[in-house]
Amino acid sequence: MANMLLDPSTGFSIDFGGMGVAPAEIAGLREKFALASAEMKKIEAGEIKNPDEKRKVTHFTDRATYQRSELFAEVERFAAGVRAGKIVSSAGKRFDAVVVNGIGGSALGPQLMQFAINGPYWNELSAERRGALKIYFLDNTDSAELVDLLDVMDPEATLHLVISKSGGTKETRNNMIALENHYASLGIPFGPNAVAITMKGSELDKHAHDNSFLAVFEMAESIGGRTSETSIVGHVPAALTGVDFGKFLDGACAMDKWTRAENPEDNPAMMLAAMWYLAGNGKGDRNMVIVPYSDRLVLLSRYLQQLVMESLGKELDREGKTVHQGLNVFGNKGGTDAHAFIQQLNDGRDDFFATFIEVLADSRRIPVSGKTCLGDYLHGFLAGLNKALLGKGRRTIMVKMERLSEFSLGQVIALYERTVALYAEFININAFHQPGVQAYKLAANGVLELAGKLNEFIGANPGFSGSAVDFSTRIGMTDAVSEVAGLLAKAALNGGAVARVASGAVWKYTVKK
Amino acid sequence: MANMLLDPSTGFSIDFGGMGVAPAEIAGLREKFALASAEMKKIEAGEIKNPDEKRKVTHFTDRATYQRSELFAEVERFAAGVRAGKIVSSAGKRFDAVVVNGIGGSALGPQLMQFAINGPYWNELSAERRGALKIYFLDNTDSAELVDLLDVMDPEATLHLVISKSGGTKETRNNMIALENHYASLGIPFGPNAVAITMKGSELDKHAHDNSFLAVFEMAESIGGRTSETSIVGHVPAALTGVDFGKFLDGACAMDKWTRAENPEDNPAMMLAAMWYLAGNGKGDRNMVIVPYSDRLVLLSRYLQQLVMESLGKELDREGKTVHQGLNVFGNKGGTDAHAFIQQLNDGRDDFFATFIEVLADSRRIPVSGKTCLGDYLHGFLAGLNKALLGKGRRTIMVKMERLSEFSLGQVIALYERTVALYAEFININAFHQPGVQAYKLAANGVLELAGKLNEFIGANPGFSGSAVDFSTRIGMTDAVSEVAGLLAKAALNGGAVARVASGAVWKYTVKK
Repeated sequence: MANMLLDPSTGFSIDFGGMGVAPAEIAGLREKFALASAEMKKIEAGEIKNPDEKRKVTHFTDRATYQRSELFAEVERFAAGVRAGKIVSSAGKRFDAVVVNGIGGSALGPQLMQFAINGPYWNELSAERRGALKIYFLDNTDSAELVDLLDVMDPEATLHLVISKSGGTKETRNNMIALENHYASLGIPFGPNAVAITMKGSELDKHAHDNSFLAVFEMAESIGGRTSETSIVGHVPAALTGVDFGKFLDGACAMDKWTRAENPEDNPAMMLAAMWYLAGNGKGDRNMVIVPYSDRLVLLSRYLQQLVMESLGKELDREGKTVHQGLNVFGNKGGTDAHAFIQQLNDGRDDFFATFIEVLADSRRIPVSGKTCLGDYLHGFLAGLNKALLGKGRRTIMVKMERLSEFSLGQVIALYERTVALYAEFININAFHQPGVQAYKLAANGVLELAGKLNEFIGANPGFSGSAVDFSTRIGMTDAVSEVAGLLAKAALNGGAVARVASGAVWKYTVKK
Repeated sequence: MANMLLDPSTGFSIDFGGMGVAPAEIAGLREKFALASAEMKKIEAGEIKNPDEKRKVTHFTDRATYQRSELFAEVERFAAGVRAGKIVSSAGKRFDAVVVNGIGGSALGPQLMQFAINGPYWNELSAERRGALKIYFLDNTDSAELVDLLDVMDPEATLHLVISKSGGTKETRNNMIALENHYASLGIPFGPNAVAITMKGSELDKHAHDNSFLAVFEMAESIGGRTSETSIVGHVPAALTGVDFGKFLDGACAMDKWTRAENPEDNPAMMLAAMWYLAGNGKGDRNMVIVPYSDRLVLLSRYLQQLVMESLGKELDREGKTVHQGLNVFGNKGGTDAHAFIQQLNDGRDDFFATFIEVLADSRRIPVSGKTCLGDYLHGFLAGLNKALLGKGRRTIMVKMERLSEFSLGQVIALYERTVALYAEFININAFHQPGVQAYKLAANGVLELAGKLNEFIGANPGFSGSAVDFSTRIGMTDAVSEVAGLLAKAALNGGAVARVASGAVWKYTVKK
């Protein structure tokens, strides 16, 4: 068993030596490797591998042909037209900025890409320097986020990208409606300044066509949000902001090719999945700490947190047995994190394995001590931390890439996507659905329905006064006191029909007359 | 035992009902409460409570008087002078931006404050809208970060704030030197555009005085980096960017007062520490997931990650017994995280407790469905998630504040600072040192020294060719093959004196002639 796997053609390497895994442990996984490999082939052959949603899983294969597709060419043409000022806003202005309205898988990938390739100050660079659109994100349903955007947005020069596969995602729909109302109040039509990315026939698809959206790009049903960065979801924001999406696809495809290696010990995704499995006893008993030694990769851990935890955090295995699987992911950036949580990694709980990601080429060689440059210190801090951790018997994986680029970002994402799929086979779960999110959505809808019931009572009972328990009793919802308390508090602080005063350690609410 | 503690005067509440803790469990902690309370009094009385570094721990008490101090007034005068254009750059220009050069405790607090109070697009607002300086951060030793800054920075209108308590922090020193060289190359003196925050007599203090820095503000030895946000470290960036630091101190002091409550069950910090202790069996067996339902608090989890993990992640207890303590912290923002890792919290490993932080007052009431506003959905999603998690037997804590402001941010930070100190007493560790960071720094220095040895060999052996093992053997460092390999790779990719080609699955390096 080789500790390091290396792709000589791209200089990408991954070293498992710091995991302290014995060859016999790898040999012991032979059956799992064979099974996972066979299942992976079924995925790539188009079998239904997400049975709960009766869907194929095509992100690994669609990207191999995407760059030669008509859709790809159409997006490139559209983005070039916008950037060149040939496709203009309804006010006839050149689009200066794009707002990406999407959440989860529709936001994290574009955010990661944007920060990694265009950097933290893209929007502050002059239009000449940028040569492409500024970019903003709406990825929540907090009014603060929208108000902050309205503060800097020129409604006559902003393109709105609404991304929702199902077309029904509440947060995204909410922001779209709020923006449509805002535009209406300004007398500007929203549709001609908007583009939708969604499944054919979705609510959003219909809405976009009914409201004269500038364009609608189709999203495949078989690509889940958290694995959509190599699809149309990643492409449109990238193309509008000057990112070379073709190179990103090339990187992902190069990694796909490498991670199809038949021999597990030559296959970096298979070996990485094995490391996760062995480190966490097949149950995620160790947290995965992701620390890229690259300032621009600070969002990678958050991106992988979604990819890994939403894919692997499952209650049932494929046979319906309760397994409560998962794998925690966190981290920010090195060497900064060394001045934050690395103290605990060095000295504290031995409950993690760290993955370091190094970008070898410095952005610029900036000497600060003789010939020693900023980047040499960064490397020294990484090597030193790795040495210190290994000296304490902690476990580390070292990923190295030559430079940070669209290509290498594609490699990293594709590596982790395949590792997640293989690991899911090891532990026999469906990595491609998210039933827990449905449960939470139902509960949230319940709270919003409860709000209706409560408001009805409030409307009919001016002057009524009491605690949350009293209100709950009156509306016959004594099993929902905490939700009623939350709704009353929210109403009291937002000009609703109730006022509150503290009565000892509880709030007392009074319906305004 | 009341499940909810409420400060009626500020509307801040914290509800432990979702932790499922029985009164008997709280009663069982009586001795720990008494001990922690007594030790906390010693801290506040100025005893040496960080014995390894022979230091007092004064962040809880200094902030009670800071607002009435001469230093506070001096900072306010200085910042007002800068903002009004009375204190100008060496080129005679009004300072338009401040660069905060600091790492860990010298960066995370100001970053959190900045994002929470001034929002994500502060630097993009017009000077009139802002009425105060733009702000940038250098918190790493990656050249990419510096190059990105230089791309947007006007050297004639930028104030540099160099923050290092010891004055010797390498990353901060590196960025300062790089900036000084950059300024020298432009023919602009650096010092008259710079301010230092450091301990009296430090290397940086001397450097600042020798180089005519515009000002030097003194940092107390008894305040650690990760608890320095309520000190001068937080004050200067806040004052320069229009944040009301006095209100922030008021909030922290209000929480300090509340969390000095003698009765543990009336003391939110004591109860919160008890929850951490009971949830994790006094060993951090559950991860702490921090999810603020407030877009502008997205950095809070990262801030608390440092505060908690650097304070509690310790190898030895106070008697020198090996304990490997710690408490993992991660999270981003709700409802966004519901589309990311919340799937795992709902369905996956039961290895965490979640802390939700709600801001009740909407930034603006923006209706999107009848009278239902964006913020009502945000509340509904939070209440729904909480209900779903509790339905699965998961554990949650609910913190509520009326609005997000300097004051409430001060409350939150002070609450967690005291909770960390009390919890450290429960588990008998020193929360105020960071010995693991020293170990890592030593190892990093070793790597940088090794680089010198390797470069010497390379200089003397043009044409030498071999693997990292061969180079290691030749310099007599066969115990450091991985470090040598790292240094060779770094050199090869950065125009150093070696070139590399892949030879099978390993790199072969050749010294250039």
